Amino acid sequence: MAAEPGYLTEKQAVLTRLRRIEGQIRGLQRLVDEEQYCIDILTQVSAATKALEGVALVLLDQHLEHCLTHATDPAEAQQKLNEASAAIRRLVRS
Amino acid sequence: MAAEPGYLTEKQAVLTRLRRIEGQIRGLQRLVDEEQYCIDILTQVSAATKALEGVALVLLDQHLEHCLTHATDPAEAQQKLNEASAAIRRLVRS
Amino acid sequence: MAAEPGYLTEKQAVLTRLRRIEGQIRGLQRLVDEEQYCIDILTQVSAATKALEGVALVLLDQHLEHCLTHATDPAEAQQKLNEASAAIRRLVRS
Amino acid sequence: MAAEPGYLTEKQAVLTRLRRIEGQIRGLQRLVDEEQYCIDILTQVSAATKALEGVALVLLDQHLEHCLTHATDPAEAQQKLNEASAAIRRLVRS
Repeated sequence: MAAEPGYLTEKQAVLTRLRRIEGQIRGLQRLVDEEQYCIDILTQVSAATKALEGVALVLLDQHLEHCLTHATDPAEAQQKLNEASAAIRRLVRS
Repeated sequence: MAAEPGYLTEKQAVLTRLRRIEGQIRGLQRLVDEEQYCIDILTQVSAATKALEGVALVLLDQHLEHCLTHATDPAEAQQKLNEASAAIRRLVRS
Repeated sequence: MAAEPGYLTEKQAVLTRLRRIEGQIRGLQRLVDEEQYCIDILTQVSAATKALEGVALVLLDQHLEHCLTHATDPAEAQQKLNEASAAIRRLVRS
Repeated sequence: MAAEPGYLTEKQAVLTRLRRIEGQIRGLQRLVDEEQYCIDILTQVSAATKALEGVALVLLDQHLEHCLTHATDPAEAQQKLNEASAAIRRLVRS
């Protein structure tokens, strides 16, 4: 299953985004530790959440593109689509 | 403004959650670096997003509770409420 | 409990928003019935969802403002806050 | 573009869902008009929002399935995917 992942073309961009998000989370710990103003912390939490959703959307695009361009077997294509659909569901609900 | 933050009672719990989320973000970098299956990565992104929203909800609760129990000056109470309202708006939209 | 609701000052504005959303939902039925392009329908679904969230945010503001300005009994204030917190949770997760 | 929409197989199910949501929105107007308890109204708003997201997810599934099974021209497939991606983005952010 992992033999030929669909998101490879954006691998470096995704890693860069994740490292930036890791920095945001560490920044949040500092803000909480310093007991900064709650609303300012919340603003940073929202920014990190949005950044994570951005990563999800890139990964999803890559997966769907891969499905579309590499699907030869209809059953496999349908299964990949079902997985994508469940992932979108989790994203929209999260 | 930061003199008397409203979320102090949950400070350690919030820090623990944030450290766990930092671990999740590092785990995500590993999954991407190893080119794991895209859908599995997306599942972990959703989990981290939900965990971040959990932190936001705790911070918001603490802020609202603080507003309610410490508000003496009506103008200040109204201002804090407006800030909370804007923060909720960002959360719901993020 | 319903004796003195907290959102009254915006009642007409909320009703107007809801009537507009009802129109959006009827418009969606027409688009689906006429088999319009799926993506165009999705755009309208997102618009209606956003409009509903807008109603929720107004109601929530009014509730919180009411809590803050009318809370005399601390136990009652705490209970109202717990309810507001649960409502925010449902909103963020929905 | 509208010649051959992708969601047809679920048309009746989607219409039924939308009619039920229309009923929910009318119910909300009644609750507001009767000045019911704010938190109870918010619960119903969240339910309607979730129901609308459910409609969006069905439409999206149908669109993606249609893309996958009917895409013959790569350029057209890519364009449809871009549209789907933008629609997912709006959904996740809404």
